Amino acid sequence: MLEKTLRMNYLYDFYQSLLTTKQRQYMELYFLDDWSLGEIAEEFEVSRQAVYDNIKRTESMLEEYEGKLTLFSKFEERSILMKKLKTAIEKDATKESILIIVDSLERLD
Amino acid sequence: MLEKTLRMNYLYDFYQSLLTTKQRQYMELYFLDDWSLGEIAEEFEVSRQAVYDNIKRTESMLEEYEGKLTLFSKFEERSILMKKLKTAIEKDATKESILIIVDSLERLD
Repeated sequence: MLEKTLRMNYLYDFYQSLLTTKQRQYMELYFLDDWSLGEIAEEFEVSRQAVYDNIKRTESMLEEYEGKLTLFSKFEERSILMKKLKTAIEKDATKESILIIVDSLERLD
Repeated sequence: MLEKTLRMNYLYDFYQSLLTTKQRQYMELYFLDDWSLGEIAEEFEVSRQAVYDNIKRTESMLEEYEGKLTLFSKFEERSILMKKLKTAIEKDATKESILIIVDSLERLD
């Protein structure tokens, strides 16, 4: 559950610009501010089921965008390489081994 | 005109997964294979106007996606920094100045 919430937070970060205002409102309250479905329903004067359906649909959309654009998985790969790169520079690795990491980073684009 | 074609090629590269099959077919023939509107119209047995409208609409969609996700402009910024980084490493710049470039790269994500 926690892992799923974390993933949704990331996907939301990457793709929120592709959602509607209503979708963004529900997602922020539910995933970022930890409101319950009932609380959101009350705030927007709609049924709990309507909020639930909207959030489920938004989650599917976010996964669909990730399936197509893979921004989150590329971000994760890039993060690992950036960490490697910094360690290599800090530990005075050879120029050649540093450039190999830089090449891997370039190939991610 | 050439600059616009180049831009469309890039935007197409980044966002093609969000287009329909028909949109992808037209875009590839027109921008990548350099077919004329008339040739595409003949191939798909539709009017030249229909092809033109479809391509214009697709161009707008690609610009709209770029406005929202800015993948191309981030790619350009990252390319400049990657080039700087490689030059700094190759010219044996100080560890500190190399790490400053790495930090700028991280802030792009």
